[in-house]
Amino acid sequence: MQTERIYNFSAGPSVLPVSVLEQAAAEMVNYRGTGMSVMEMSHRSKVYVSLFDEIKADLKRLMNVPDTHEILFMHGGATLQFSAVPLNLIGKTGKADYAVTGSFSGLAMKEAKKFGEINVACTSEDRNHSYIPAQADIKLSADASYFHYCANNTIFGTEWKYVPDTGNVPLVCDMSSNILSYPLDVSKYGIIYAGVQKNMAPAGMGVVVIDKSLIGAELPYTPKLLSYKVIADGDSMPNTPPCYTLYMLGLMLKWFEAQGGAQAMQKIKAQKSKLLYDVIDDSDFFLGHAEKAVRSDMNVTFRSSSEELDAKFIKEAKAKGFENLKGHRSVGGMRASIYNAMPMEGVEKLAEFMREFEKNN
Amino acid sequence: MQTERIYNFSAGPSVLPVSVLEQAAAEMVNYRGTGMSVMEMSHRSKVYVSLFDEIKADLKRLMNVPDTHEILFMHGGATLQFSAVPLNLIGKTGKADYAVTGSFSGLAMKEAKKFGEINVACTSEDRNHSYIPAQADIKLSADASYFHYCANNTIFGTEWKYVPDTGNVPLVCDMSSNILSYPLDVSKYGIIYAGVQKNMAPAGMGVVVIDKSLIGAELPYTPKLLSYKVIADGDSMPNTPPCYTLYMLGLMLKWFEAQGGAQAMQKIKAQKSKLLYDVIDDSDFFLGHAEKAVRSDMNVTFRSSSEELDAKFIKEAKAKGFENLKGHRSVGGMRASIYNAMPMEGVEKLAEFMREFEKNN
Repeated sequence: MQTERIYNFSAGPSVLPVSVLEQAAAEMVNYRGTGMSVMEMSHRSKVYVSLFDEIKADLKRLMNVPDTHEILFMHGGATLQFSAVPLNLIGKTGKADYAVTGSFSGLAMKEAKKFGEINVACTSEDRNHSYIPAQADIKLSADASYFHYCANNTIFGTEWKYVPDTGNVPLVCDMSSNILSYPLDVSKYGIIYAGVQKNMAPAGMGVVVIDKSLIGAELPYTPKLLSYKVIADGDSMPNTPPCYTLYMLGLMLKWFEAQGGAQAMQKIKAQKSKLLYDVIDDSDFFLGHAEKAVRSDMNVTFRSSSEELDAKFIKEAKAKGFENLKGHRSVGGMRASIYNAMPMEGVEKLAEFMREFEKNN
Repeated sequence: MQTERIYNFSAGPSVLPVSVLEQAAAEMVNYRGTGMSVMEMSHRSKVYVSLFDEIKADLKRLMNVPDTHEILFMHGGATLQFSAVPLNLIGKTGKADYAVTGSFSGLAMKEAKKFGEINVACTSEDRNHSYIPAQADIKLSADASYFHYCANNTIFGTEWKYVPDTGNVPLVCDMSSNILSYPLDVSKYGIIYAGVQKNMAPAGMGVVVIDKSLIGAELPYTPKLLSYKVIADGDSMPNTPPCYTLYMLGLMLKWFEAQGGAQAMQKIKAQKSKLLYDVIDDSDFFLGHAEKAVRSDMNVTFRSSSEELDAKFIKEAKAKGFENLKGHRSVGGMRASIYNAMPMEGVEKLAEFMREFEKNN
């Protein structure tokens, strides 16, 4: 039954380091002599609370979170934050600015419309989200409660290469698909949030890093567990948190630190994406979707010379152990998601396969 | 490092069967020859979707869910349902009835007040929730959109031994702490919901079984992922679900079925709780919190003759490998949570320890 591990290019949930999975397996039935699994622990128990404190401290250190900001762990992924952000922040003026540079930022914008007046400050929809608008093209409102954007567009393979300047308006950033992949000046952001299932942990949790001064202004009909104040006051445990997902995040953070942290990760991700972009740039056969200047290091989107060859590519790749390379239907072609846990070897082998496929077709 | 497994009487998250944990560990790095962990699978992949379909079908069969009802898997636990229930149901008349028989039903009632007018139809607060009001004592409103109660009160150790008759008003029941412990006529309920971390799986998910005719009436400001219609239309995957928690639920359901399902579980739980209640009833030393007629088979609450002896009991029990026996602060004393996965042996040994402790003190 047991076969080799394959190379999993899934856009999320996505590949995790084998060493992390092995540790989780080894600790499953009896966590470090406690006589029970982490899954079975009361979240109020001494051993779990100490585990939780360590995870939070690790994330604070590794993301270089200043004391002005609080870390919240919340149920649900980024999509629940699409609601939580306006519920907690839009009350100030009733208005917010959204940059729409992909599918998820569009969904975030649509959800926010339930709770206030939304201005689309910029969009890349006209060229199927293949680019990121320049600072000069962002039309800010004078009285927005916040400005929302998505740092990396998983489906389209684009990444903001600059942090938008919004003056005194708090920046809210969905970093689901590139969090922990580069060093960050957290102090620039009102809120950074991420669903954990791409670069951090298995699916089922959201991480929110929030300027403490933004906490406590939620609309009256905010559901209890979507209130940042309730979560902050309960130190992410006003109710039972997703305990095991948190534990997995903890293992991932130890692994991340052992790799050298955010700075090392930034170098590694650039090396990995270059392997694939070089194939695309050297080729008359493969065509990238994203404009060169804003190509993502996390999601590489490309197509071959025809839809038939795209299908053939995906099929042959699968047979060779490269899984989940099919592009999203709104872009077509292929997408290779190469998050932190994707080994260099996997990307090297995929690049090699691409060159070979081009030669043969 | 590895010690024996202990007996974990935690109220939730709580004990899981060793065989289930061992299977999870064995399948962690490479799930049944797929070359990846369930944690790493795209929720849109063939193998995961087929796993999901099987889990849902298993739950439908094991809970005997009729075709009039839909099963929803949602982020968060019961607490998120405290918001979702009124958001989706209270719009009909703007009013709802709540039975308050413990801490969590009180929290559910408090949350519902954000969204409409709430009538406390009955409460057991006057005697610290040691009893369950009789049908005759429930004061129903004429125009409630629904009636909400909590079937088993984890903290106080009481259990509704009857299903309240509310006429045409839909019954909404929080079964977090006794779901899957007895055969159920699902057709009587508008909604049954449960946080999974007691009888079903590790923490981080809610299960909702809902009469389809109640879907689609959410208030306009309902967050997307709290809308039963959105979840139903997306077959519990409008966004990435808590994939691994679902997988663990799947393993638990196979185990549950192997034990004989709901009918067998009802016999086993009665046997287990009798072991402890017999000690209490035979004793002048131990005193139960709950009235005999409504004692819970899932959470056995009791105290000794003094707070000092309670503390001594908990300490000595811990030394013998009985963990998490401290009662909730609102009741004091001790609480033994003996969910489905607590082995008979653990309860036998605890009963024995109780008799011994009484003899010695």
